[in-house]
Amino acid sequence: MEEFFRIEKDFLGEKKIEKDAYYGIQTLRAKENFHITKTNISLFPNFIKSLAKVKKACALANHELGDLTDIQTDAIIQACNEIIDGKFYDQFIVDPIQGGAGTSTNMNTNEVIANRALEILGYERSSYDIIHPNNHINMSQSTNDVYPTAIKLTLFDLIYKLKDSLRFLRDTFNEKSVEFKDVLKMGRTQLQDAVPMTLGQEFKTFATMIDEDIYRLREAQALLKEVNLGATAIGTGINTKKEYRRKAIKYLREVTGVDYVSAGDLIEATQDTGIFVHISGILKRVAIKISKICNDLRLLSSGPRAGLNEINLPPLQPGSSIMPGKVNPVIPEVVNQVAFDVIGADATISIASEGGQLQLNVFEPLIAYKLFNSINMMRRAFHTLATKCVKGITANEEVCMNNILNSVTLVTCLNPILGYEKSSALAKEALATNKRVYDIILEQKLFTKEELDELLHPRNMVNNYDEKEGNDEDNCD
Amino acid sequence: MEEFFRIEKDFLGEKKIEKDAYYGIQTLRAKENFHITKTNISLFPNFIKSLAKVKKACALANHELGDLTDIQTDAIIQACNEIIDGKFYDQFIVDPIQGGAGTSTNMNTNEVIANRALEILGYERSSYDIIHPNNHINMSQSTNDVYPTAIKLTLFDLIYKLKDSLRFLRDTFNEKSVEFKDVLKMGRTQLQDAVPMTLGQEFKTFATMIDEDIYRLREAQALLKEVNLGATAIGTGINTKKEYRRKAIKYLREVTGVDYVSAGDLIEATQDTGIFVHISGILKRVAIKISKICNDLRLLSSGPRAGLNEINLPPLQPGSSIMPGKVNPVIPEVVNQVAFDVIGADATISIASEGGQLQLNVFEPLIAYKLFNSINMMRRAFHTLATKCVKGITANEEVCMNNILNSVTLVTCLNPILGYEKSSALAKEALATNKRVYDIILEQKLFTKEELDELLHPRNMVNNYDEKEGNDEDNCD
Amino acid sequence: MEEFFRIEKDFLGEKKIEKDAYYGIQTLRAKENFHITKTNISLFPNFIKSLAKVKKACALANHELGDLTDIQTDAIIQACNEIIDGKFYDQFIVDPIQGGAGTSTNMNTNEVIANRALEILGYERSSYDIIHPNNHINMSQSTNDVYPTAIKLTLFDLIYKLKDSLRFLRDTFNEKSVEFKDVLKMGRTQLQDAVPMTLGQEFKTFATMIDEDIYRLREAQALLKEVNLGATAIGTGINTKKEYRRKAIKYLREVTGVDYVSAGDLIEATQDTGIFVHISGILKRVAIKISKICNDLRLLSSGPRAGLNEINLPPLQPGSSIMPGKVNPVIPEVVNQVAFDVIGADATISIASEGGQLQLNVFEPLIAYKLFNSINMMRRAFHTLATKCVKGITANEEVCMNNILNSVTLVTCLNPILGYEKSSALAKEALATNKRVYDIILEQKLFTKEELDELLHPRNMVNNYDEKEGNDEDNCD
Amino acid sequence: MEEFFRIEKDFLGEKKIEKDAYYGIQTLRAKENFHITKTNISLFPNFIKSLAKVKKACALANHELGDLTDIQTDAIIQACNEIIDGKFYDQFIVDPIQGGAGTSTNMNTNEVIANRALEILGYERSSYDIIHPNNHINMSQSTNDVYPTAIKLTLFDLIYKLKDSLRFLRDTFNEKSVEFKDVLKMGRTQLQDAVPMTLGQEFKTFATMIDEDIYRLREAQALLKEVNLGATAIGTGINTKKEYRRKAIKYLREVTGVDYVSAGDLIEATQDTGIFVHISGILKRVAIKISKICNDLRLLSSGPRAGLNEINLPPLQPGSSIMPGKVNPVIPEVVNQVAFDVIGADATISIASEGGQLQLNVFEPLIAYKLFNSINMMRRAFHTLATKCVKGITANEEVCMNNILNSVTLVTCLNPILGYEKSSALAKEALATNKRVYDIILEQKLFTKEELDELLHPRNMVNNYDEKEGNDEDNCD
Repeated sequence: MEEFFRIEKDFLGEKKIEKDAYYGIQTLRAKENFHITKTNISLFPNFIKSLAKVKKACALANHELGDLTDIQTDAIIQACNEIIDGKFYDQFIVDPIQGGAGTSTNMNTNEVIANRALEILGYERSSYDIIHPNNHINMSQSTNDVYPTAIKLTLFDLIYKLKDSLRFLRDTFNEKSVEFKDVLKMGRTQLQDAVPMTLGQEFKTFATMIDEDIYRLREAQALLKEVNLGATAIGTGINTKKEYRRKAIKYLREVTGVDYVSAGDLIEATQDTGIFVHISGILKRVAIKISKICNDLRLLSSGPRAGLNEINLPPLQPGSSIMPGKVNPVIPEVVNQVAFDVIGADATISIASEGGQLQLNVFEPLIAYKLFNSINMMRRAFHTLATKCVKGITANEEVCMNNILNSVTLVTCLNPILGYEKSSALAKEALATNKRVYDIILEQKLFTKEELDELLHPRNMVNNYDEKEGNDEDNCD
Repeated sequence: MEEFFRIEKDFLGEKKIEKDAYYGIQTLRAKENFHITKTNISLFPNFIKSLAKVKKACALANHELGDLTDIQTDAIIQACNEIIDGKFYDQFIVDPIQGGAGTSTNMNTNEVIANRALEILGYERSSYDIIHPNNHINMSQSTNDVYPTAIKLTLFDLIYKLKDSLRFLRDTFNEKSVEFKDVLKMGRTQLQDAVPMTLGQEFKTFATMIDEDIYRLREAQALLKEVNLGATAIGTGINTKKEYRRKAIKYLREVTGVDYVSAGDLIEATQDTGIFVHISGILKRVAIKISKICNDLRLLSSGPRAGLNEINLPPLQPGSSIMPGKVNPVIPEVVNQVAFDVIGADATISIASEGGQLQLNVFEPLIAYKLFNSINMMRRAFHTLATKCVKGITANEEVCMNNILNSVTLVTCLNPILGYEKSSALAKEALATNKRVYDIILEQKLFTKEELDELLHPRNMVNNYDEKEGNDEDNCD
Repeated sequence: MEEFFRIEKDFLGEKKIEKDAYYGIQTLRAKENFHITKTNISLFPNFIKSLAKVKKACALANHELGDLTDIQTDAIIQACNEIIDGKFYDQFIVDPIQGGAGTSTNMNTNEVIANRALEILGYERSSYDIIHPNNHINMSQSTNDVYPTAIKLTLFDLIYKLKDSLRFLRDTFNEKSVEFKDVLKMGRTQLQDAVPMTLGQEFKTFATMIDEDIYRLREAQALLKEVNLGATAIGTGINTKKEYRRKAIKYLREVTGVDYVSAGDLIEATQDTGIFVHISGILKRVAIKISKICNDLRLLSSGPRAGLNEINLPPLQPGSSIMPGKVNPVIPEVVNQVAFDVIGADATISIASEGGQLQLNVFEPLIAYKLFNSINMMRRAFHTLATKCVKGITANEEVCMNNILNSVTLVTCLNPILGYEKSSALAKEALATNKRVYDIILEQKLFTKEELDELLHPRNMVNNYDEKEGNDEDNCD
Repeated sequence: MEEFFRIEKDFLGEKKIEKDAYYGIQTLRAKENFHITKTNISLFPNFIKSLAKVKKACALANHELGDLTDIQTDAIIQACNEIIDGKFYDQFIVDPIQGGAGTSTNMNTNEVIANRALEILGYERSSYDIIHPNNHINMSQSTNDVYPTAIKLTLFDLIYKLKDSLRFLRDTFNEKSVEFKDVLKMGRTQLQDAVPMTLGQEFKTFATMIDEDIYRLREAQALLKEVNLGATAIGTGINTKKEYRRKAIKYLREVTGVDYVSAGDLIEATQDTGIFVHISGILKRVAIKISKICNDLRLLSSGPRAGLNEINLPPLQPGSSIMPGKVNPVIPEVVNQVAFDVIGADATISIASEGGQLQLNVFEPLIAYKLFNSINMMRRAFHTLATKCVKGITANEEVCMNNILNSVTLVTCLNPILGYEKSSALAKEALATNKRVYDIILEQKLFTKEELDELLHPRNMVNNYDEKEGNDEDNCD
């Protein structure tokens, strides 16, 4: 037995740990205590890396302040670098949803780094008098500053990637908008026939929506740069030297290449989760937009015979186990579901944030878990949407044009000439007689055919203003 | 000045009150403290009545126990009866959203009843040595039992009315389902053409959905009968005689005509808001269903030329300030919005319920406000939906039938004979060639025309099982 | 290459499948199309079993109707039984969040059963002319009836288990309520000192809350028994024989041992997701209650020196990486987070349900995923709460008693004798002078010491009504 | 009869309208159709003003383009100005929750302005050949551009006011933070004793939180400046001259004094409600923060004898109908409830936004209603919180200091000297023996009294870093 295990102890007692494990007693306790998601924090490799980066920056600051020796520091930095390079993920075994405000995640990190650093220096694991998880790896730190800082680093990176996937999706819609720029179709408000537009305009709208969201994400991302490193337990910086905060932030910038800054009010920054609510709100905004786009894609491709049938989505899989030949809009459908999940996650994050008390919000592990998950699922969903659906969409031009020719609301463009009431009467007659408005107007000799054709020319209807006027954030790169 | 005001005082000081007002100092303080909604509790007449009923039951119990004199009791009962009959609503002036867990609403009620009772007995207002708001009207009571009990009485009545409006809506859909029983149309799954059904079946579905919800409301309503009257401050019944609880409940049953019962665990019943979360969940369920129905009505009536156009909603108002003749589905649209508001109210109620602490949930005023509002808005919306929309719906039979004849998924009914793969191939060919499946089958001589007509007869497709088998809760009255 | 793969094709083309895989082309397409959660449906073993049970029931019905041969049937039943016994889970590879309304899950099941049945009969995989995933395994079925039926079977089982974990938690609280029955303490309303109670009553309240929720779960569970098996594509039962529905349900009852019944309106039952919204609402109710309980446990154990400190939670792990000796309420904290996740899941399910259109709700995969996850997380959380926290709670009796002795609101029990205003004045003086109410009363000679001691005896305050009166659902087993 | 009414007609028929009413037939139809909230749009005077401002800007643009005569224009402008000055609100009678995407609100405005302009010119009401609600007041406009533009104007103004109320609240907290700067107290994480801080720091935190939110509101407010005026029905600008858009925006800037700009993609801007989701998200963020602050105020003032009792909230009203002398934190309680309502409103707005289809979101009336309501309720609540609660808060300095002296986590500050494990052991002993850590250390002679007093001096614990380092957005004015 002894050959397989080593013993560690803390003030609650002692525990046996597998000899080769890099983690220690506190990780093991947490593993036993929190058995909720059946996953562990290595589900989010980016988060593990961020934790190691924070630990590295802190070690460099402590070294500069003379509180870690060169030998200790070199070993700790090497251990951190290895984790940043993707090693030892299997040693991060605690459940992402945990009590204790992230202490278990922080201690898991401290223990893995300590034991790997000891190994590098040629010591046995658990030789904590040489390098101690709390006294050295966690030096000048508390979970309460390290953990939210690592969450912010992670979110910063993940949002970077999310923007990439949104840019790709936007560009795909933009390509389609060019492809469909001459496809005339009926615009609809309240699902009722309105006035003409082009299918290109419809797809351009999707691109513009996404582009605006990229801007909003960029703004929100910038807010993540304010961190509370150096705050320690509650923001008073207890257990740190006065110069520590500045040095830790300096090294954090070096290690990450991102210009992180210290919050002005560290006590506030330690307890406040406003930034996470903010990010979640922006993610929800993105989700709602994309869901609306997917709803539209499903509507426009409905049919093929008893629906709008204006566009065709690429068939990806047989749509039904019983109806042969049926092909369903499975990709927009799955993207809708991701959006709904993000909307629900926002509700969770809101209630978790509201529940914070006094000097700490103890529900940060859940908040981080939901945010990481939402972003990751959206990234996968948006990439799928672009590549497996939008790229392959084709237009049914004839269907689109017939909708215009048959429409009653064509009278709208005669409104400025005939007035609202006369136009309404024409529309009413067209509906009652099931005739075309076009034919009624000629019958009533309101215009000559030539006049009417010019008035009704789609070119006069789909773009009635100078495009150069507007406030254009397009192509946020 | 003196002629217009009287003076009342409490342990925080004294205040001038309009001479004719029935309310007193505590009401006035609350009026000044809570200025949130710009409305007051008389927005909910049913709630005022319920408060008076509870006060009446308590007075009768206290009288029976010898703690109120005959004279006091008679005056109090008369005052309560007058309120129950709809008088003095203008005296209920406190904001429905208030701090203090409803104390202000309770005290408003106590003060109005006390001063009206004093008036009945020929005393000046504020002669509280004769009849005191706390010592007599609130005798053996606390806000913490009176207030939630009155909320439950109110909800019981409001749900009764909500069920009425749902029954009316259900019956309206049922009438339409009979009217449309022979209108064949294409059923759709995932917005894609599926297999035939009748428009009558589609409307019957709406009726069935609503009917199930009436059942669920009835079950939830029954849970409201458990009240905590007699619990007083925290559920220990402090300040009451041991026999009081039973008597108070007995009189509550008499006064209301509803068989209310006492909760088994009064401490739990005083702090728990599970019943309100439950009711809210059921209301949300109703809202979601009705919203789905409205979405369907808007989809089915989309067009008239570039949409599904299977049904016509009655035109109620010009639909557009710019597009002449446009008529929009304004009633389903407004009902959708009510549904969304109810869904949001459920989120509010959830967070308010979760926030209760220890022996009381101090957020009951908000919970009650949202529940009352949700039910009232739904009642109005459902009545509007039935009378101004559903009743007047007409079917476009020809459009419906053409959708079937043109459909590709007709092959589904050949599935059992030809197999899934052959059927799929037929469907694919129909789509590629833009031909009718019917014609392709005859070309390929897979069946004779007679065989095919029989196989494809809608009667064989729209009802393929013995209707008598199912679990039918229909017509819950 | 050829030795490792076999080829399957459908109307969209052909794909290579690993030779040993039991799944087929449609599973593989779905695997490629849906890459959202990085998990697969085998995350929910109960769901896989339920799918196999439904397939088994259908096969038995088809056999009885003469549409499957004895040989086919025996092989299919054996394959189903093996899955029910826990085999082949690694063959269920599709993402639980998927487009297509569950078609991929259904086809994954159909393909695995078909290929295993073929293997049992000695055929090569993909020999679908013998046993075909669609024509035989899915015979008389559609995803649209099979999939929601399997979800209901799963939920029925999971709720059964959830109730077990709630019963265990309830019993644990009940044990504590007995243990603490003589610990007098101050009850609090609005976080302010109210009137006395026992710690036993406080814990009994938690038990009662949970007990009520078990009742509500039981009622909701019963609603799951209504299934739409036999509805096929949209509820018209197309592709089935008229007798099929009854037989399929009969066999479903046999296979599961649960008395499932057929819905009365199959078209409604196929598109309606009200039951899932309902279940989610009840789960949210449970979550809110448990979260409230955890909030209370954290409040009552706050301190140890600067908090309420009435109870001690068992220490489980060092609470802080920086503050030595700190022990945190990590278990209630993690349970709170599970509750918040369930509340968010309810928001997701609501929006997914509202988004269903016409004859199908295409978002059922997400709905099922969230429900399964919520229940599983709650089960684990509640078990943890009972075993790792509640069981080990101890009381600080002295702290509790001192809170009563020092309290001002003791005057409440003098209210019936002295009146509200006099009592208020006493309270005010006690606060102003920082004296005990008890001492002031004696100073003012309002009562003799003997009278006062009797009046203030906790026994007179903590239980002031006849316990036998109430409506007691307790001990729902 | 005739003397009291005039007759108007539209393409659906004719209606009698009160002779003196400024509104017309479409307003009346809407009034009859939408009976949901029992209020009308004049509930939001700011919104009425914004509508008039938009109409005024459009009239000026149409006049400049030669499409309205001088006489018409002058009368219309005067009518608009009168509304902007607060007149005719009683003529705005349509329900804020309405179908039709705001058409009824727009037509109500068009009709009131038309009839008032007619009156100014000496014509009878309804003389629409002179000035027509659609042809002249709504010239070059659609509900779909006018209505969302007016919503944005309103939100811009309301957020301005909301920031004012937040600034006032922030300043009030800042004043308290100065007042309490020397009150030492125990900081708490996870409701457990952590390390010392000052009460001033705690209140400063509240100020900082609010200050950050003011920044976020300011950023969000800026996004409101992009409007879609000139888009008309779907964004193609149909029924306008090419120069109209620029001129209308120019006049909108003049009329409002705010630098509004035209959206770059008007089709997108007409259908997208991302900005409203965004604003709602920020409002929710504010609500969550304030709710957290109120939770803290209630916790810190809990007691007075059996709670934390660190601060006293000013007593505003008797707290209980049964417990004499009880004073409750009624103001934070009511503010919490407003916050919960705002959180629920965000859920409503999210689902309403997601439900938009194709070229329009028909649920804008609900979105506007919820946003206006949320802001108005928050303004009132925050003002109440500042004036009736925060201003009057006092500190219990002795209670605060005793909490520090008795605490166990004092050992934290010895951590850097003694190490985590030794410190833990000291903490454990203090808890077990119920001694002070201070005394144990002296007993064990780990330090001299002088050393220890210096180490434990609060000045060394409450502010351990250079305050000038941080990123300070404070005092956003």
